[in-house]
Amino acid sequence: MIKVNENLGLYLDYYELIMAQGYFLSGRNNVFANFDYFFRKNPFDSGYTVFAGLQDLLELISNFKFSEQSIDYLKKLGFKSEFLDYLKNFEFSGNIYSVNEGECVFPYEPVMRVEGNLIETQLLESILLNVINFESLIATKARRLRYSAKEKKLADFGLRRAQGLAAIYASRAAVIGGMDNTSNVYSAFLYNLIPTGTQAHSWIQSFESELTAFRKFAELYPNNCVLLVDTYDTLKSGVPNAITVAKEMERKGYKLSAIRLDSGDLAYLSKKARKMLDDAGLNYVKIIASNQLDEYLIKSLIEQGAPIDAFGVGTNLITGQKDAALDGVYKITSIDNKPTIKLSEDLAKVTLPGKKKIIRYFNGEDKFYADAIALEDEVDDEINIIFHPHNPNKKCSVASFKKEKIISEVFEDGRVKFKQKSIKEISDYLQFRFSQLPDEHKRFEFPHIYKVGISKKLMNLRDELVMNK
Amino acid sequence: MIKVNENLGLYLDYYELIMAQGYFLSGRNNVFANFDYFFRKNPFDSGYTVFAGLQDLLELISNFKFSEQSIDYLKKLGFKSEFLDYLKNFEFSGNIYSVNEGECVFPYEPVMRVEGNLIETQLLESILLNVINFESLIATKARRLRYSAKEKKLADFGLRRAQGLAAIYASRAAVIGGMDNTSNVYSAFLYNLIPTGTQAHSWIQSFESELTAFRKFAELYPNNCVLLVDTYDTLKSGVPNAITVAKEMERKGYKLSAIRLDSGDLAYLSKKARKMLDDAGLNYVKIIASNQLDEYLIKSLIEQGAPIDAFGVGTNLITGQKDAALDGVYKITSIDNKPTIKLSEDLAKVTLPGKKKIIRYFNGEDKFYADAIALEDEVDDEINIIFHPHNPNKKCSVASFKKEKIISEVFEDGRVKFKQKSIKEISDYLQFRFSQLPDEHKRFEFPHIYKVGISKKLMNLRDELVMNK
Repeated sequence: MIKVNENLGLYLDYYELIMAQGYFLSGRNNVFANFDYFFRKNPFDSGYTVFAGLQDLLELISNFKFSEQSIDYLKKLGFKSEFLDYLKNFEFSGNIYSVNEGECVFPYEPVMRVEGNLIETQLLESILLNVINFESLIATKARRLRYSAKEKKLADFGLRRAQGLAAIYASRAAVIGGMDNTSNVYSAFLYNLIPTGTQAHSWIQSFESELTAFRKFAELYPNNCVLLVDTYDTLKSGVPNAITVAKEMERKGYKLSAIRLDSGDLAYLSKKARKMLDDAGLNYVKIIASNQLDEYLIKSLIEQGAPIDAFGVGTNLITGQKDAALDGVYKITSIDNKPTIKLSEDLAKVTLPGKKKIIRYFNGEDKFYADAIALEDEVDDEINIIFHPHNPNKKCSVASFKKEKIISEVFEDGRVKFKQKSIKEISDYLQFRFSQLPDEHKRFEFPHIYKVGISKKLMNLRDELVMNK
Repeated sequence: MIKVNENLGLYLDYYELIMAQGYFLSGRNNVFANFDYFFRKNPFDSGYTVFAGLQDLLELISNFKFSEQSIDYLKKLGFKSEFLDYLKNFEFSGNIYSVNEGECVFPYEPVMRVEGNLIETQLLESILLNVINFESLIATKARRLRYSAKEKKLADFGLRRAQGLAAIYASRAAVIGGMDNTSNVYSAFLYNLIPTGTQAHSWIQSFESELTAFRKFAELYPNNCVLLVDTYDTLKSGVPNAITVAKEMERKGYKLSAIRLDSGDLAYLSKKARKMLDDAGLNYVKIIASNQLDEYLIKSLIEQGAPIDAFGVGTNLITGQKDAALDGVYKITSIDNKPTIKLSEDLAKVTLPGKKKIIRYFNGEDKFYADAIALEDEVDDEINIIFHPHNPNKKCSVASFKKEKIISEVFEDGRVKFKQKSIKEISDYLQFRFSQLPDEHKRFEFPHIYKVGISKKLMNLRDELVMNK
């Protein structure tokens, strides 16, 4: 229920511990390893992915320890006492490189790199995947919602349909992606988000009539009064009663903020309600809509000219439907600085070996043009051509483009090494980067595939390792 | 990261607090209310839903309080000090009725009922929905996996693709539903589940050769040695090396437990690998398969005669794909013991008013026949006919059937009122109840819809309230 707990060291897959003990018992705990985090597919058939979860992850890693209680538990499971003695003093002492939180990233890019001894790099696998896969999924979903909603307000209403405690990180990622506020008070408290919400049907039903319920609410909350109008009959009862109360509020010097539609055909009802409100001289009263919304429905409502000012999005946002998971993986890329590779019949599943960096190229209008994955020690200016990772016949020149290295150190020798950012700063950064992403990558239907290439040297290294296996 | 936290009272939708303050300020905090929890659709187009999450929820409710820190936060948000004084001493003091955890339940059944004052019943809404919707989703998914896997072993491998902290409850619900064990050590520790796992590709890659990696693992873990055979080439390298190591183990008096296939065509590879193992006299070595499995793939593998002994299931289980959420809702049904109703153009969305119970009828073979939703104060023996909730022309007789009331009190006057059960007990109960569910409700394609009817008295009450609105 909180972000950090004394038994945090147990938040991993059992095989990490089995391997860690194996490395320890075979005297390999000082072997130096490099792992990459990357994913193979953008979620939601999107043209991009928003990288999120970094600050939560770094906080978790800073607190990733084995309490006495955890050690006792592992002892009962049969782990050896020499290894448990080692775990007692365990803390991650390596380095982590990452793209910025809020960055737009693409399949196959090693957006995080973890360096350290074999045990510590291995033990971080599960928690890294768990946090980054999920927050990136939700931030991407929220960015798509923001894209379809344009300048309209967007609220996260997902807590009740969130996957249990998933809600805690999800609401944070949702605001990074572009939601304005959230119904989730716990996350608002933890991350300094803006909480939002007014009343449920139960409020209306708890009074003898809808009109009384509206009046009472207006009396109690005259400065932020939103009335839910669909408990009995939206157009015959809800909207007329809201208008009555709005007029009463006017006489006391207040203004009804909005009505909320939560069922029925939102395009039809919002147009009818807008007209009723306008005819009553209440053109300042806004219309909020909710009920199983997603980016496609919002796009459609806007295209239909539905006069909706704000959208509340629940299930589809908070669970990242229709995918519900980002397929990110954590793969070893070198051992004692010797590049290593995992093979597969499918070339797309052969890992990219060695320590690597990502270089982003910008076109003349300062928009993203392509990204290169290259070996860390390559000279950037010598990379003139990049190759499709799985089809060397597809290549493109990047010789003349402005460029930027988009991965930097965030953890050094076991200590966080960057300035903590507010959610607002992360969200603003995303907005800036998103503005640099060409439009054809943003559309929902068959977005143009962003160019990600590998350098000649990296391609040669991979092919050489494949040959020699 | 743990189940309970001092700021737990903030784990709710903001509007619950807005309404609660409204009830408080309008002197309605002693108005007595009744809320039902129910859902409208089985997940996964399933013929049933497994109810889960109850014990987690009751623990959370017992600890649902507002710490000083929470109060300070709410003060900053503008809540009034009279109300905050009330919240300081808040604890749920009402009653909760529920079906057993592990029960098979069906759409529209009020499987939980919460009674108490308006404020306390309202404040529990978000957390109840959050926990029950999610655990029921995952337990149902796991039950479907168990149904397709028959007697084969099933492991939860989902932590890395879980929706962040969702994993904590998800692994619990997965074992309730029918998984044998889990890779998630944290949940294993919290709920006394069986942790499982061996090694990743990184273990293999970290050694100079696959054979060395296998040998080293066998040396360290001779009694539970599972070897992952797809790092380089399953049939040309992985399986032959595993056979070599198995033979070496035999000479030392040990037995290789299993090989694990994690990519490629699992039907093809498992048959080939089985033959290679058998030809080498290793018919005792089992085959474990993983990689994007779900209940349909497992069913298909078994139908194809794939000689797989155990399945590891990750993403599809832990995120409850393809639905990712159960649509459960929490609706007010009476105020000061007067039934109340929410209307809708869609009859299926009109709520069932009043305090209710669920009666389950059994046929001659002691299998579930139908469930009735009736008013709490009806005499069970007087219910002879039940009616389709939304189509009164559809009815059935239940006069002669054996029956059982499936809802009972679990919280009384603010205190948990039932014996805590182990996960094993809950899982066994589900297995028993599932054996009482007729087969036609279990199939994946167009399962037969289980009969859920309402009593004549309940129907009359609803129709009367609809008429008078």
